[in-house]
Amino acid sequence: MKKNITVLPGDGIGLEVVQSAVEVLETIGTIYGHDFAFDYADIGGSAIDKHNDPLPASTIKACKAGDAVLLGAVGGPKWDQLSGDMRPEKGLLRIRKELDLFANLRPVIGFDSLSDSSTLRKEVITGIDLMIVRELTGGLYFGEPRERREENGETIAVDTLIYSRSEIERIIRKGFELAQVRSRRVTSVDKANVLETSRLWREIAEEISTEYPDVALEHMLVDNAAMQLIRDPQYFDVIVTENLFGDILSDEASMLTGSLGMLPSASMSAEGPGLYEPVHGSAPDIAGQDKANPLAAISSASMMLKYAFGLSEEALAVDKAIDQVLNEGFRTGDIAREGEAVKTTSEITQKVIETLRSK
Amino acid sequence: MKKNITVLPGDGIGLEVVQSAVEVLETIGTIYGHDFAFDYADIGGSAIDKHNDPLPASTIKACKAGDAVLLGAVGGPKWDQLSGDMRPEKGLLRIRKELDLFANLRPVIGFDSLSDSSTLRKEVITGIDLMIVRELTGGLYFGEPRERREENGETIAVDTLIYSRSEIERIIRKGFELAQVRSRRVTSVDKANVLETSRLWREIAEEISTEYPDVALEHMLVDNAAMQLIRDPQYFDVIVTENLFGDILSDEASMLTGSLGMLPSASMSAEGPGLYEPVHGSAPDIAGQDKANPLAAISSASMMLKYAFGLSEEALAVDKAIDQVLNEGFRTGDIAREGEAVKTTSEITQKVIETLRSK
Ligand SMILES: CC(C)[C@H](C(=O)O)[C@@H](O)C(=O)O
Ligand SMILES: CC(C)[C@H](C(=O)O)[C@@H](O)C(=O)O
Repeated sequence: MKKNITVLPGDGIGLEVVQSAVEVLETIGTIYGHDFAFDYADIGGSAIDKHNDPLPASTIKACKAGDAVLLGAVGGPKWDQLSGDMRPEKGLLRIRKELDLFANLRPVIGFDSLSDSSTLRKEVITGIDLMIVRELTGGLYFGEPRERREENGETIAVDTLIYSRSEIERIIRKGFELAQVRSRRVTSVDKANVLETSRLWREIAEEISTEYPDVALEHMLVDNAAMQLIRDPQYFDVIVTENLFGDILSDEASMLTGSLGMLPSASMSAEGPGLYEPVHGSAPDIAGQDKANPLAAISSASMMLKYAFGLSEEALAVDKAIDQVLNEGFRTGDIAREGEAVKTTSEITQKVIETLRSK
Repeated sequence: MKKNITVLPGDGIGLEVVQSAVEVLETIGTIYGHDFAFDYADIGGSAIDKHNDPLPASTIKACKAGDAVLLGAVGGPKWDQLSGDMRPEKGLLRIRKELDLFANLRPVIGFDSLSDSSTLRKEVITGIDLMIVRELTGGLYFGEPRERREENGETIAVDTLIYSRSEIERIIRKGFELAQVRSRRVTSVDKANVLETSRLWREIAEEISTEYPDVALEHMLVDNAAMQLIRDPQYFDVIVTENLFGDILSDEASMLTGSLGMLPSASMSAEGPGLYEPVHGSAPDIAGQDKANPLAAISSASMMLKYAFGLSEEALAVDKAIDQVLNEGFRTGDIAREGEAVKTTSEITQKVIETLRSK
């Protein structure tokens, strides 16, 4: 199989962890006989530095021309004082819209070998395996008007939470499709006791559920969901929700397993290339020091293999290699317990590659 | 001191726990020589049944005429099928607006005696003592337009997130004032990397902070706050945030200590009567069975004594009584460990009253 992968390292540890993921993809290519070509482009702070634009036209073009996008992370103190359109994360928001990446998949899986790193009790998080499906191109993130204006002699600021039927339908469908190959349970999260958008969301979820008689649907209010994720995270299978609720709940959920440095994500459109990136940020404090945990980026590469290229066997091989490396006690600083040896980014990456090769 | 308290029992266990709180207030009145008069009115589902309105004009009038409002809880399956303006929680939303209760205070305090009921590790929650200050009368809850309409041949739903400078100023000030008598640290939570309202919020927080040089201000993005509450809840002192973020984060935080049935809240206006209510809901499944935990309602009465009437000594006496009752092992079902004796609502209430009397 021949695939073109657009690589957007971004800023901070993005550069290092993306490099690890690329090496792992190359290894998979060699072992399984695929031809992965990598095309690099700029995004975020580094793109501001080079092109005066967090998402230059050349980057958009490169992404659209490829089969999938691998992203590191964006942002850092250097660009914190810039405003509005010149902020690094604007590059991220714009690429989502440009590629119509409406479905953000964030699996949260507990690694038994890491259950001591969580602030939750071991018995509460053992075996957590949930998938958050977040709408990524609508809602408060993009609704108009979004502005500041004067009214009755004082300043008013406004954002708009807006969803159309078709936007809701496609993300709910995605949730049901994923549930079909998992435990067949969808929890649709909204705030239907307050919001008009949530009431429409809930109605449509009910409608769509009739197309998936094999999947159980339940509704949960977002405040309750924020509680239940802590009370009983093992309860959940697929959670589907709108953009901002998904932002908050997926970050909350990522903390449950104590392994934020382990968590991947996939952002998908209906047809074009999807974007695969670790959930963690650019961690400027440890950037360039060979200290970052590359496993979230490697795990994102695994999601790319599975969802973008349909290479489930290859994806499984990567997941198993990650598991084995952890079981053998290889850990970067973020997941090492007191007294445990701390490995570098390169050491962990090499270990994953060796593990893959030795199969 | 003579005070008139408007009591809104509401629905479900609201009736029972409000009764407990009234008895405790009467006891305090007797011991300390205050004259508390109680005036009952309807809200929520029971008001729908009696008046065809979740917040009848007579209730609004009663609340405005009194010195403070004590609320139980609203809602239940009986009214779940009603729509829009006839839903029980509409009564709650409307009373907030009618009384201009812009500041919702939700203290989250860990009880050592209950630390086993949490899903978080004991060492992570020991000594948690944070205060969430949630804006309660603005933002997405009340912004216009909030509607459904047809656009380009499909249905669109819209909600509006709107804040004025004065709305933001007064809630931020409340956060700083509370921090002054606590640990002098304010965490202002927003989503300034995406929302216009958050950018205004952040600017104003910076401005107001110059009026409180003795209090440290930091900004935190809402997604990060959802993580940090789990990672290190002991870190926080006062969290101040807008309505919907506050709804989500305070419910998340309430779950940390494993004692949702213990948590009180106060909703305050600039001048008029405030409203005091337990954080928990109406729990229809155990309503009328003398099983509900009355301590959140009793603790809300304590907040009333302190914030509405300035009776700090009396409030402290109630808090201490609650502590002692817990330390002596008195527990309702929600907080009892396996094998522990389960007490009724009335037994716990009587025990609190006896403890107060025996001082
Ligand atoms: C950087 C920020 C704009 C972004 C978001 O809010 O979507 C991030 O938090 C995320 O979840 O990818
Ligand atoms: C019942 C509901 C409308 C309410 C809210 O969202 O404010 C509740 O969740 C709360 O926090 O008091």
